[in-house]
Amino acid sequence: MTQPLHFVTMEGAIQPIIILVEPQLPENIGMVARAMLNFGLTELRLVNPRPLWPSDRAIDSSAGANRLLEAAKVYRSFMESTADCRKLYAASVRPRDMVKRVVTPQQAVAEIREFYAQPAAVRAEAKCAVVFGPERTGLVNDDIALMEAVVTIPVNPEFSSLNLAQAVVVVAYEWFKSVDETAASVLRTGQSLPAEQRQLQGFLLRLEQELDLCGFLRTDHMRAAMVRNLHALFARAQLTDQELRSLHGVITELVTRRVGRE
Amino acid sequence: MTQPLHFVTMEGAIQPIIILVEPQLPENIGMVARAMLNFGLTELRLVNPRPLWPSDRAIDSSAGANRLLEAAKVYRSFMESTADCRKLYAASVRPRDMVKRVVTPQQAVAEIREFYAQPAAVRAEAKCAVVFGPERTGLVNDDIALMEAVVTIPVNPEFSSLNLAQAVVVVAYEWFKSVDETAASVLRTGQSLPAEQRQLQGFLLRLEQELDLCGFLRTDHMRAAMVRNLHALFARAQLTDQELRSLHGVITELVTRRVGRE
Repeated sequence: MTQPLHFVTMEGAIQPIIILVEPQLPENIGMVARAMLNFGLTELRLVNPRPLWPSDRAIDSSAGANRLLEAAKVYRSFMESTADCRKLYAASVRPRDMVKRVVTPQQAVAEIREFYAQPAAVRAEAKCAVVFGPERTGLVNDDIALMEAVVTIPVNPEFSSLNLAQAVVVVAYEWFKSVDETAASVLRTGQSLPAEQRQLQGFLLRLEQELDLCGFLRTDHMRAAMVRNLHALFARAQLTDQELRSLHGVITELVTRRVGRE
Repeated sequence: MTQPLHFVTMEGAIQPIIILVEPQLPENIGMVARAMLNFGLTELRLVNPRPLWPSDRAIDSSAGANRLLEAAKVYRSFMESTADCRKLYAASVRPRDMVKRVVTPQQAVAEIREFYAQPAAVRAEAKCAVVFGPERTGLVNDDIALMEAVVTIPVNPEFSSLNLAQAVVVVAYEWFKSVDETAASVLRTGQSLPAEQRQLQGFLLRLEQELDLCGFLRTDHMRAAMVRNLHALFARAQLTDQELRSLHGVITELVTRRVGRE
């Protein structure tokens, strides 16, 4: 299931490179590739990966992100891997004993977007990267010192060790989210639409009449509140034409059966 | 490396439960547990997990989130696992042929926060859950139909299949982020502070004098702009007291060596 990298063409160079320094487990590299492609990132660099490269186990773990792994470039040092980058973020916990700006993943992504909003950056095909260290030890301070800022994922201080691929998920997700225009909340009604008010009111009137007939609304002083509550309940559901027809059918059947039982 | 679940006590019931319906791979369950605890979620429910339960392989993959796995409750059906929940979100792609509200992870988390902002919800120890389906097939429509909304993670449409644990990462990360108060960007200067302006200006004046002496600023019509650019560069770096002392030392040494060479 090899995937076309259409996203490369769509986005061009305007995306951060993900650099993994000395990744130890091929499964993690594969899952990083999968997570990157899930969120539209396509350029991966590896510095001295521990697994023999290319790695079948990495490919197995990538769930089809083969081409991203095949296109990954391998370097012998951090310096080499970052030589052509103009903005560098170190994915790390906040470093001690170093004067360094610390940003959230959302902020890092916003800054990279701002950088690419400058025509000069696009003209120069300028490169940015977010750099992740080895699984257990993380980035060394000498490498962190060379980078513009540290991007620290906010986590539970009681249990703060993130899996490498899951750290990449967070950064890549924020990247995708920063251009995604999905509505925060939308009622998907498919082929149908929320019913016209006259249909809804027609249904509610019929319901009220049937409830009067069966005696449910007999308590006069509660009647107005009860009817209003039923109206509010059905209005909240944002019923479609089709659903109103179903509910008419439900009432018809309930009434018929009740009559039958009498 | 068993972790105390301090977060349980800190947060009480005020967090969504994560429900995994028929998870197939023990590694995924372990990585879900790790991701949950990374982002402060502690209540996991499993519906008919495929691995024999409890599972050593799940524990191995949880990187120390043992107690969360040990506390996980196992159910025989979706209905049982959700019986005491008052708000349910289905983690799924947008369902076809169903009228259903679709929300982003950020929106789902905001709604759950709003729910718990109601004192009645806290008093009743009301439960909410986000429900994830089996790895390959996802949730069935009959289960989705019973839930308040579908939460869909925005992804690259060309490569949209998310790993189960990575989908949980996104939801759990949004949960943590919704209360996290970390500054978006902050310069960490540790024991030192950004220098007082008089120290910075003193350094810049000395630099200018040395550059006059060595002849670097000899071109009169460029002088003002060059000096201003140097000021801007050093001001941008937000130098600390300690760093200014280092830079004074650097200049002293450069000047001495230059004098020595002459």
